Amino acid sequence: MSGDTLPHGAATRRMAEWAATVSRERTLSTRTHAQKGIKDLLGCMIGGSAETVPKRVAQVALLLFGGSGGPCTLVGSGQRVSAAAAAFANGASAHILDFDDSFRPLTGHPSCTIVPAILAVAEEQHASGDDVIDAYVVGVEISAAMGRAAPKHHDVGWHGTATVGVVAAAVACARVLRLDTDGVANAISVAVSASSGSRMQIGYDVKCVQPGAAARDAVLAAYLAKAGIRGNPEVLVGPWGWSKLYAGVDSDGSEYVFPGPGEPLAIVDPGITYKPYPTCGSTHRTLNAVLEMCHRHNIRADDVERIETVIPFLNTQNLRYDRPVNGMQARFSMPYTCAVAVLCRQIRLSDFEDAAIARPDVQALMERVSMRTLPGSEHTDKTYLEMPCYTKISLRSGRVYEDERYDRRGESTQPLTTEEERFKFEDCTRSVLTESQRKQILALLENLGSVTDVAALTELLR
Amino acid sequence: MSGDTLPHGAATRRMAEWAATVSRERTLSTRTHAQKGIKDLLGCMIGGSAETVPKRVAQVALLLFGGSGGPCTLVGSGQRVSAAAAAFANGASAHILDFDDSFRPLTGHPSCTIVPAILAVAEEQHASGDDVIDAYVVGVEISAAMGRAAPKHHDVGWHGTATVGVVAAAVACARVLRLDTDGVANAISVAVSASSGSRMQIGYDVKCVQPGAAARDAVLAAYLAKAGIRGNPEVLVGPWGWSKLYAGVDSDGSEYVFPGPGEPLAIVDPGITYKPYPTCGSTHRTLNAVLEMCHRHNIRADDVERIETVIPFLNTQNLRYDRPVNGMQARFSMPYTCAVAVLCRQIRLSDFEDAAIARPDVQALMERVSMRTLPGSEHTDKTYLEMPCYTKISLRSGRVYEDERYDRRGESTQPLTTEEERFKFEDCTRSVLTESQRKQILALLENLGSVTDVAALTELLR
Repeated sequence: MSGDTLPHGAATRRMAEWAATVSRERTLSTRTHAQKGIKDLLGCMIGGSAETVPKRVAQVALLLFGGSGGPCTLVGSGQRVSAAAAAFANGASAHILDFDDSFRPLTGHPSCTIVPAILAVAEEQHASGDDVIDAYVVGVEISAAMGRAAPKHHDVGWHGTATVGVVAAAVACARVLRLDTDGVANAISVAVSASSGSRMQIGYDVKCVQPGAAARDAVLAAYLAKAGIRGNPEVLVGPWGWSKLYAGVDSDGSEYVFPGPGEPLAIVDPGITYKPYPTCGSTHRTLNAVLEMCHRHNIRADDVERIETVIPFLNTQNLRYDRPVNGMQARFSMPYTCAVAVLCRQIRLSDFEDAAIARPDVQALMERVSMRTLPGSEHTDKTYLEMPCYTKISLRSGRVYEDERYDRRGESTQPLTTEEERFKFEDCTRSVLTESQRKQILALLENLGSVTDVAALTELLR
Repeated sequence: MSGDTLPHGAATRRMAEWAATVSRERTLSTRTHAQKGIKDLLGCMIGGSAETVPKRVAQVALLLFGGSGGPCTLVGSGQRVSAAAAAFANGASAHILDFDDSFRPLTGHPSCTIVPAILAVAEEQHASGDDVIDAYVVGVEISAAMGRAAPKHHDVGWHGTATVGVVAAAVACARVLRLDTDGVANAISVAVSASSGSRMQIGYDVKCVQPGAAARDAVLAAYLAKAGIRGNPEVLVGPWGWSKLYAGVDSDGSEYVFPGPGEPLAIVDPGITYKPYPTCGSTHRTLNAVLEMCHRHNIRADDVERIETVIPFLNTQNLRYDRPVNGMQARFSMPYTCAVAVLCRQIRLSDFEDAAIARPDVQALMERVSMRTLPGSEHTDKTYLEMPCYTKISLRSGRVYEDERYDRRGESTQPLTTEEERFKFEDCTRSVLTESQRKQILALLENLGSVTDVAALTELLR
């Protein structure tokens, strides 16, 4: 094939080969981690399904993707729909609350694309619980590899959750379909041609539409590959490759690295981060500090003169709403989330219903919260976890409490307590599930490996 | 909204406002141009629907997007399917032959996204022929404006046909749905979040999947906007905007320009380019020359000693296959297409069936065709039409014929003859339609403005 000077398949083939051939023994050895990730995401997805935006997405999906009566579960709706409609709307539900997991190698949320995509394929295929776990672990690994290969991707404005997510989820779906290396490579190629999504949509409905679309396109990519659709075998590197177009990297493919035998999988190290609060991750270290100080010193809102917060530049960039007017903006507001933490001593989903924003006590306390950028953090090679968050609460009595911290609760090194996990799942699912349904789902999730047809789980999510 | 420093709606709002408010009187005044564009595209789409790749896309769409029985026509299949399945598979059919129109401001193919997307929405809505014409003209204008605003977009590797196409087609669909300026702006915002597609896929199945996906996502964007989904109001410019991410332009929005009262619409000037041959546009000026010389001087294959072609760098980049092994590659091969031109004195779709490639007479003649890059054309600000193509045919008799040309047949300044248009439509539709169906469709297309429900047309395409 003369004139064809692109390198053929170096990085893409390595990725496809790893994903097609990594042993199930190895992926299933991380079952506990995977079950935790899937449980956390399902909680967010079930809770999210009650929100307006995913409901609208579901309506449009039903209108355009074939109505009700398909093989797949539309979570929280009582309905079975087409696989594309399920992946699309469930993906939007999974991300709408901004409560879903994050992942440092990705600088984004891995599970909100992977889980809805896998569930749709697994349900259509009557796959087993172990198939789901296996595919989930593979998808998380791909998102880690791509995230590490594209370190500036997020900075320049791409929503890695969706842009990387569509490829990671496509590979996971291809794994459920048991495609071989060539098949996975074609799924990757189709998925890269659908890689899109922008950080401009933070604070807007479209933010959750993006991972929904990525989940849908991932399902599609895997089935198109299975149907024999062929793409360019090297889509990650080269002059027009993903690395160049989406991350400005003149890649030779060597950045795409996968764990060899004996090396830990990404789901184990560095592991996934779970959110204790349904707010932007950039508020979390500060909220950890505020809640701890309030509990330890029994601080009440009336006692507070002012709260001063200092956080890295990357984090202030996400917290774009000092005076939020709705729940979507309130998640990206340091004053609002700090005020809720002091007043309520916990942070619940109901604090982000639109009507909750205007509460006079919260509004009054917000006026006494300030946020500043950590000096020097604008220009540095350090990650945000290598720089501290400062929190200072000054009381009317003259007393002052201060906190400096680098660590974030919910990281794998500092996991949420069982009690926190339980509270989160209940808070998410309370408005959608009965107590009995919740117990059945949790019981199944803890023994997902023994489920022979994933329909046993998905029918409980309807 | 403190902290929100992106400019709000300057370029996107101007685009949305133009599209929502340009008068139908004005768009319908270009009815003849629009009907020509729609007819040419439908020919390509009907012919493409018989190809393997769109058939596979349609199978997957039926599996994942709701099976048969929806409101919209799957062209060439006898079936009605969901709107998303129709737009997706019809879009792939429209582009698979690489016979569909092109458009200089876009550096791409405008109609293969716009027409399938509009048809799906119009059919679902029972819109009229004039609605389709009106929306088509608006969509073409948007593709021109975005193409002009992003001159380097194509060069760096994006498949503008899909990346711009999804936005242009979304605006066209929003016009069919009669959304107001805010609605169109939201449709643009959703569509920009789905902008994807790479030139890496030239020569692979995925090349036609990309505009199919763009047509599908355009339909979705318009309906999501109609359902109240809201996106960032300024997605085209700003640090994370489309211009910056997809074309490296630090735009202030002033590049996005729309014709004022009295200025010609893009469909009139520069107008759309129609292909006389089902091959990459980069071969066309050379094929114009070869065919003319063969007819004029009655040159036969056996007479030919050698054919030397010299074309601009941009064109050689697309013609990646000196020795094509299948029909998809043969479209992007100068030796193959020149050999067919000499041997057959015309270029038909059947010349690009996989089995046709191996014909011994064609293979033998290919060996005598060479292609070189025009010196100096690698580094220039000139467009390819500002640089000549040279063609030299040397006969065994010692006789030499030479041709130098700047113009390309099928441009609006040098339109195809009525006979050529007829030949193209027949060649495209011969394998799918009866003579009677073809006549009915052509009659309807010539009076599209009098069609009150576009179903009268689409049912003939099934």
